Amino acid sequence: MAVPFITEVKRTHTCGQLTKAQIGEEVVLFGWVQNRRDHGGAVFIDLRDREGLTQVVFEPDIAKEAHETAGQLRLEYCVGIKGKVVSRGSQVNPKLKTGEIEIKASDLTIFNRSEPTPFLVEDNIDTAEEKRLAYRFLDLRRRPLQQSLITRSKMNAITRSYLNDNRFLELETPFMGKYTPGGARNFLVPSRLNPGKFYALAESPQLYKQLFMVAGFDRYFQIVKCFRDEDLRLDRQPEFTQIDIEMSFVTQDDIFTIVEGLIKKLWGEVLGIDVPTPFMRMDFDESMAKYGNDKPDLRFGLEHIVLTELIRQHGAAGGVPMIWDAVEQGGIVKAMVVPGDKPMSRAESDKLEEFAKQNGAKGLARAKVAEGGEWTQSPLSKTITPALRQAINQACGVKTGDLLLFQFGRESLVHTVMANLRVHVAKKLGLIPEYGSGGVWKFLWVVNPPLFEYDEESKTWAAAHHAFTRPHDEHVQYLQTDPGRVKCHRYDVVLNGFEIGGGSIRLHDPKVQAEVFKALGIGEEEARVKFGFLLDALKFGAPPHGGLALGMDRLAMLLTGAESLRDVIPFPKTKTGTDLMTGAPGDVDDRQLREVHVRAAPLPQK
Amino acid sequence: MAVPFITEVKRTHTCGQLTKAQIGEEVVLFGWVQNRRDHGGAVFIDLRDREGLTQVVFEPDIAKEAHETAGQLRLEYCVGIKGKVVSRGSQVNPKLKTGEIEIKASDLTIFNRSEPTPFLVEDNIDTAEEKRLAYRFLDLRRRPLQQSLITRSKMNAITRSYLNDNRFLELETPFMGKYTPGGARNFLVPSRLNPGKFYALAESPQLYKQLFMVAGFDRYFQIVKCFRDEDLRLDRQPEFTQIDIEMSFVTQDDIFTIVEGLIKKLWGEVLGIDVPTPFMRMDFDESMAKYGNDKPDLRFGLEHIVLTELIRQHGAAGGVPMIWDAVEQGGIVKAMVVPGDKPMSRAESDKLEEFAKQNGAKGLARAKVAEGGEWTQSPLSKTITPALRQAINQACGVKTGDLLLFQFGRESLVHTVMANLRVHVAKKLGLIPEYGSGGVWKFLWVVNPPLFEYDEESKTWAAAHHAFTRPHDEHVQYLQTDPGRVKCHRYDVVLNGFEIGGGSIRLHDPKVQAEVFKALGIGEEEARVKFGFLLDALKFGAPPHGGLALGMDRLAMLLTGAESLRDVIPFPKTKTGTDLMTGAPGDVDDRQLREVHVRAAPLPQK
Repeated sequence: MAVPFITEVKRTHTCGQLTKAQIGEEVVLFGWVQNRRDHGGAVFIDLRDREGLTQVVFEPDIAKEAHETAGQLRLEYCVGIKGKVVSRGSQVNPKLKTGEIEIKASDLTIFNRSEPTPFLVEDNIDTAEEKRLAYRFLDLRRRPLQQSLITRSKMNAITRSYLNDNRFLELETPFMGKYTPGGARNFLVPSRLNPGKFYALAESPQLYKQLFMVAGFDRYFQIVKCFRDEDLRLDRQPEFTQIDIEMSFVTQDDIFTIVEGLIKKLWGEVLGIDVPTPFMRMDFDESMAKYGNDKPDLRFGLEHIVLTELIRQHGAAGGVPMIWDAVEQGGIVKAMVVPGDKPMSRAESDKLEEFAKQNGAKGLARAKVAEGGEWTQSPLSKTITPALRQAINQACGVKTGDLLLFQFGRESLVHTVMANLRVHVAKKLGLIPEYGSGGVWKFLWVVNPPLFEYDEESKTWAAAHHAFTRPHDEHVQYLQTDPGRVKCHRYDVVLNGFEIGGGSIRLHDPKVQAEVFKALGIGEEEARVKFGFLLDALKFGAPPHGGLALGMDRLAMLLTGAESLRDVIPFPKTKTGTDLMTGAPGDVDDRQLREVHVRAAPLPQK
Repeated sequence: MAVPFITEVKRTHTCGQLTKAQIGEEVVLFGWVQNRRDHGGAVFIDLRDREGLTQVVFEPDIAKEAHETAGQLRLEYCVGIKGKVVSRGSQVNPKLKTGEIEIKASDLTIFNRSEPTPFLVEDNIDTAEEKRLAYRFLDLRRRPLQQSLITRSKMNAITRSYLNDNRFLELETPFMGKYTPGGARNFLVPSRLNPGKFYALAESPQLYKQLFMVAGFDRYFQIVKCFRDEDLRLDRQPEFTQIDIEMSFVTQDDIFTIVEGLIKKLWGEVLGIDVPTPFMRMDFDESMAKYGNDKPDLRFGLEHIVLTELIRQHGAAGGVPMIWDAVEQGGIVKAMVVPGDKPMSRAESDKLEEFAKQNGAKGLARAKVAEGGEWTQSPLSKTITPALRQAINQACGVKTGDLLLFQFGRESLVHTVMANLRVHVAKKLGLIPEYGSGGVWKFLWVVNPPLFEYDEESKTWAAAHHAFTRPHDEHVQYLQTDPGRVKCHRYDVVLNGFEIGGGSIRLHDPKVQAEVFKALGIGEEEARVKFGFLLDALKFGAPPHGGLALGMDRLAMLLTGAESLRDVIPFPKTKTGTDLMTGAPGDVDDRQLREVHVRAAPLPQK
């Protein structure tokens, strides 16, 4: 008689659980056929579930019927087995947790058969990502993806329990909100009940979480999806997840302590690594000077040296007219030293120039430092004065054999090129691996950035992040007279060159907020339209508050060592925003569109 | 010198914490001025935060400066105070946890002032909901809303910890998915990168969670937003939250056990109430017969009695031609007894007829049972035969003084009218309160519904829920020959007349699934377009699986005793889908629409 699997005979263990401690026990396992070997009489399979693999053997003399059925088994059949745990004797597989035992099956049922799969369900496959995404439900059976998503589930649990323990309330915010011009590009949703009107999918719960503070909820968190209709670079998704936090009555330091505690817990419980706290802190200005951006990778040196002042001191007399020109026109000059103890060939250093050009540079001036501080392999060496050369050598702390790399010109471009070059060189030199942490975790807070950015094009000041960031109290006096001087309580948390989160102390004082709007050239009318309800909220006793958002996808990627964000998202989209499994986005018939009061108006394809 | 609140002087307690145990301690509290009384010399305020209220007193001879500042305080000012905990002596307020003490303040700072609020921040206000929603950040300061959202946060934590403990993985599903015609009405999102194509906002993670099972994740959960563009009745929201669950290798009973455990935990930890498990189970057919729907409120009786057979037996000879006609035309007949021990006046019973008519009935036949089983106050009494009358009296188990209510005609209408009438009468008689549980919690599983519904209009069979519900194995034989006879493994969990969740065991066998499609008249082509990827997935060893979704908003409403779903959602929308605080949905300029390849085409207003 057939064994009534599932209805009466329940699973007793997972496939990752049995060891010699259970030898002799009768067990029931459910799972998938990972592989099958027919050794003359006996049939062997590895049975797989999310917890692991267990070897099962079907022998004709022990269970005739099960053995016959086992003959039909193929890869990825979904089956249930019942049997006895026995020792593998000398055939132990030390790679498996269950490698000491196998199951001598007495019963077998096939829950469902499988056609041959379009790719093998194995740890390492070289199948094109397009095909893997089209059959994502099979791709997700592979151990690396299973493990990553299991880890991510654990990260959620750790995060929530930590924040709950710290008096944070989990409160929901709407996804369908108001469209506000001028922010990130929003996805739009036409309203059926309000013809001609549109919702915007929330790019973040920013305003709502501030309102929670105004409403007195004190501490808020959410692990929440956000939506941005950006051009998808390699590592962006149209919908992404953040750990969103807001707190009342706090300073920047109070927020840092909470976030550091969370990260310590995540790294401790997921990787067993003790992350030292508090994290290092660095001023925004210092980060820009030394690393060219506000998310430096501190696992290695290769710091930039700013030479602008030095060039200015030497002036036209320094013998480097192109560099001097750049400075005279308001540009900056930076150098970086590639140490001579990891020498680069001439061909390699030529490739660096190519890389710089791909990043927007006109070229890459460089010089090899010879005995006595002489420069070789460099057009600069012909005209530069010994005084300037020596000054540069000294400022850069070079020694014989080092290679100097230079960029000069427009500040933002110099920073970007040199920042990318720094990471590129570090990978070339093997200072960091191509991806993954290499076991080194360098956390950092980048603090005190300017409140405003000057927009060269419109000749106006714009909010560097958003218009509700609180300036330093002692800088409020410069809001109208010298906006560029105003620093603010904005902060980013950085790990190994990735910005993993950021936030700010918010403006809660309606007077200062009015001054910031004035400095931004935002009139009362415009402010009302864009932020009316938040401005109202500040009038009714808004508390001092601040917060932060951590990129959950990025955190999961870093913690699991995954190569891409797509590997930690169950059903990701491609660079063009399509889902290769479901075919989304898709066609919608006209009737459906009429109901929501829009017409499709695709532009002719260029 | 001013006390540096927040930066150096940190909050020591919340406003709901201090008792006589802390008398003599120096404390720092932050919060809002709930009220202020100027008693000649001393100023008293109640300071409020999310945890409670604490009385603070400012006396001129103790702290001159603080006392002067206290003179400026008005309602809803946000302040920090420092002071000493003292006994209130005989002035104890037993209603407050902190009622034994007050704080003699030494320092006070005003973090932010408040304009007079448009309504008072008090527990009970009669302000129109429109105004409360427009100033939601103030409405949310009121204790009932604060408490509800704090409870909801706790429900999230309990749910997640319970499911994590039971080996469920929290896995994310995309919100921007494929539009599939024929389901619930979806919100649409035009794609910028794919001109003329649209995403649909996910109405539920249904297909994705089944794919998680196919991928071998075994147990999945999510507390997740879902989107449906329905006409919003009183208690619906365009975005709502569900606890979403899916399990592999389980029977219906296994799922029931998990859900019952969760509900037991929620009621235990939130309300301190021990919910007995397992829940009662009732067949769908029985529920329809006795209660007229599949979500009966079992806190009271007033069961329906189906008289169709009895009328048929008596036929035309019964003396009730209208009722007999209805039965002859395929209709049904139901009665309900309003017990005579809670007598209703003639006027009241007339009002019941009005109610029935509002629910679509043509009228409400009724009869008062007099001594000896005679009927009075009824047109029926004139023509009905004594035999039929006696038979009805017996079937309904009436006694003298009882009132009989009848409906007859089209089955679905009779059920609906009688179901609504049953609840209406129960409220009239005070058997249940107007809203809220009244302290009685009647949980129930409604099981074994039919797989198909016959659509009178199109003369075809349609899936009663969705096309992936597993029929009872012993009914598979009727799929083509007698579809109406096929029962399925679908189940709803019901509490006090509300469906709080529902789910099913899914089809995992591609052969049976093909048969179901055939019975539904869904061709291969149509199936491919609608469900292609799920059909593919079933071919590769899909495990037996099933799941369920619980309505989180509804659960929160029932657990907190809130009157409306809107009271357990921080920022809800109105019946027309608008957000009265932000003004969403709003206008979008043409340039923005062109970017996403649509044009607004609102129909002329009727």
